[in-house]
Amino acid sequence: MQRRSFLKKTGLGLAASAAAVAAPAVHAGEPKVKWRMTSSFPKSLSILYSTAELLANRLREITDGNFDIRVFPAGKIVPSMGALDAVERGTVDMCHTCSYYYTDKNKAFALGTSIPFGMNARQFDSWVMEGGGQKLLDEFYADWNVYSFLGGNTGVQMGGWFRNRIETVRDLHGLKMRIAGLGGDVMQQLGVVPLQLPASALYSALEKGIIDAVEWIAPHDDEKLAFHKLVKHYYAPGWWEPGPAVHFYVNRLQWNKLPKSYQAAFRSAAREAHIYMYSLYNRRNPEALSRLLQAGVHLETFSQDVMKRAWEAAMDLYADERRKNSAWAKIYPEYNRYLRLISAWFCISEYPYDRFIYSMR
Amino acid sequence: MQRRSFLKKTGLGLAASAAAVAAPAVHAGEPKVKWRMTSSFPKSLSILYSTAELLANRLREITDGNFDIRVFPAGKIVPSMGALDAVERGTVDMCHTCSYYYTDKNKAFALGTSIPFGMNARQFDSWVMEGGGQKLLDEFYADWNVYSFLGGNTGVQMGGWFRNRIETVRDLHGLKMRIAGLGGDVMQQLGVVPLQLPASALYSALEKGIIDAVEWIAPHDDEKLAFHKLVKHYYAPGWWEPGPAVHFYVNRLQWNKLPKSYQAAFRSAAREAHIYMYSLYNRRNPEALSRLLQAGVHLETFSQDVMKRAWEAAMDLYADERRKNSAWAKIYPEYNRYLRLISAWFCISEYPYDRFIYSMR
Repeated sequence: MQRRSFLKKTGLGLAASAAAVAAPAVHAGEPKVKWRMTSSFPKSLSILYSTAELLANRLREITDGNFDIRVFPAGKIVPSMGALDAVERGTVDMCHTCSYYYTDKNKAFALGTSIPFGMNARQFDSWVMEGGGQKLLDEFYADWNVYSFLGGNTGVQMGGWFRNRIETVRDLHGLKMRIAGLGGDVMQQLGVVPLQLPASALYSALEKGIIDAVEWIAPHDDEKLAFHKLVKHYYAPGWWEPGPAVHFYVNRLQWNKLPKSYQAAFRSAAREAHIYMYSLYNRRNPEALSRLLQAGVHLETFSQDVMKRAWEAAMDLYADERRKNSAWAKIYPEYNRYLRLISAWFCISEYPYDRFIYSMR
Repeated sequence: MQRRSFLKKTGLGLAASAAAVAAPAVHAGEPKVKWRMTSSFPKSLSILYSTAELLANRLREITDGNFDIRVFPAGKIVPSMGALDAVERGTVDMCHTCSYYYTDKNKAFALGTSIPFGMNARQFDSWVMEGGGQKLLDEFYADWNVYSFLGGNTGVQMGGWFRNRIETVRDLHGLKMRIAGLGGDVMQQLGVVPLQLPASALYSALEKGIIDAVEWIAPHDDEKLAFHKLVKHYYAPGWWEPGPAVHFYVNRLQWNKLPKSYQAAFRSAAREAHIYMYSLYNRRNPEALSRLLQAGVHLETFSQDVMKRAWEAAMDLYADERRKNSAWAKIYPEYNRYLRLISAWFCISEYPYDRFIYSMR
């Protein structure tokens, strides 16, 4: 960890409000900047992958081609889950990835994406953008030598695919399930054997019985991965991923070398990419769900029993993590305080509206 | 209307995908462009007003000051509700306003902001950005010589302030209420006398009994306007404004003169401004609601009886409008088709998640 301390001491560990950083001495009008971005996603997962391309395309348009970011799909130059390490080391200048892919380094990485029973997409946006979340997350990410920028959200995910119906917690016992982030830790408390596998391995693992159940994202992507050809029970809601954010991570040294005008363009284009992904998932999921139902998929809802046991396991996990993990102890209480406050507003405003509307249709 | 036909024929009525427009001949590197934007909001409504400033500031940063938009508050050079006319005529280059302020020109203007029992903010974003809504709206706005860009959303609003409790539709009878957009038409069917007044006139009108009830936005702005000092019954949800968007309108001639790089910067910065407003409202409303409750405000929910009667009146209004208004007949069926499809997805994904979460807190 010496290197990380060094990075902090040399001042690269500045807070994220980097637009305030003085223009670097190299700034001279419209310099040519060529960056490489590795994506954690394959091209076939088109909404995820195209979000990185949108950022790159827009920056080329804004700068008349001078700020040129080349995007590489997962595995082309860096493995899917190696994206953060590659940016930290400077192998690439930036990446597009999920913070919670790195919970083996520290469980607090989950707080950058989504946690079981945590904020939904719009609550999380509000916390990161306006509620102090960006600063807390970037202080944490400083140990990995990156600045973070929201780079999409899938919206609340589905609860995954199961061979048989899950009526009680007992039905989860011994199931081998591909599940990401802290959802896996919570499911483990309910008797599941959680496994983390990349998208490309999932169909075959389910077909061969290496896993009994799988969660990936939601109808649009799940349909592409064709799980419905193998198992029929499709559960909602994905209580462990209520609003998963995707991130752009940028190497701090490279960021600080950018002219201020490019930094400003990057901020705006990243926001555009962020809302693009969320809107496009909301556009594509309904159609895909329709097709899946026509193909004979059984739509199921987790029982209150399963949800409540999962809730208790999650709260135990958070309490435990708070005792032993200083990063978690710093970020989570703020996250939770914000969630409580904003929930009090949402449950008297958008929730009764939605309830009425769905009851009428 | 001859002038409008002329504008269409000369090709200014192009579809909104203006990034595809060929770079104008005047494009020469980084030209100085000075624009004036009139806001429909006063500086005191800080979230609304600062959204226009954010766009202007970011564009100056991105272009090193070359694309310079000066923002004027409501009434400084153009009256609040005169913003669209001023952009159409070219008195100003652009404005920041609400589409439904112009329903006296055509009720279809409401479809650009929000309609009773319509889409929530994230459904509307998805329709406009990815579901064909932008094209439909811009074809409509072409008659007013503007391109439209999403410029914020308040999220679901509150149902307003009343002197007495509203238990049945009978309690609405004869009430003089400040209410905007098509909500006023629906309320009129329930016996209300709807009035449209600007923010600055509301407190005094309520104090003097010129109005008996008032809806503005939600806790953050309503608290600033101090309605709680006059009346105590604060209703939710604002079923006539489930996700009101605010828009930037740009004069088509001025837009087409911009270099492509400035158009690209504008698109990204507008997206940033859009999500900024929504996130900041979500940040500030919970705190303001807390303070209002501490000040003795009674939080109330519209009864199912009132909501259902309003729903019926709204559906009648839409059917009627479809018969007599060709713009409505073109846009609304697409809007409604999208709403039905996306609701089927939301009510099995985010709705059961939210229901569970709010039941546990």
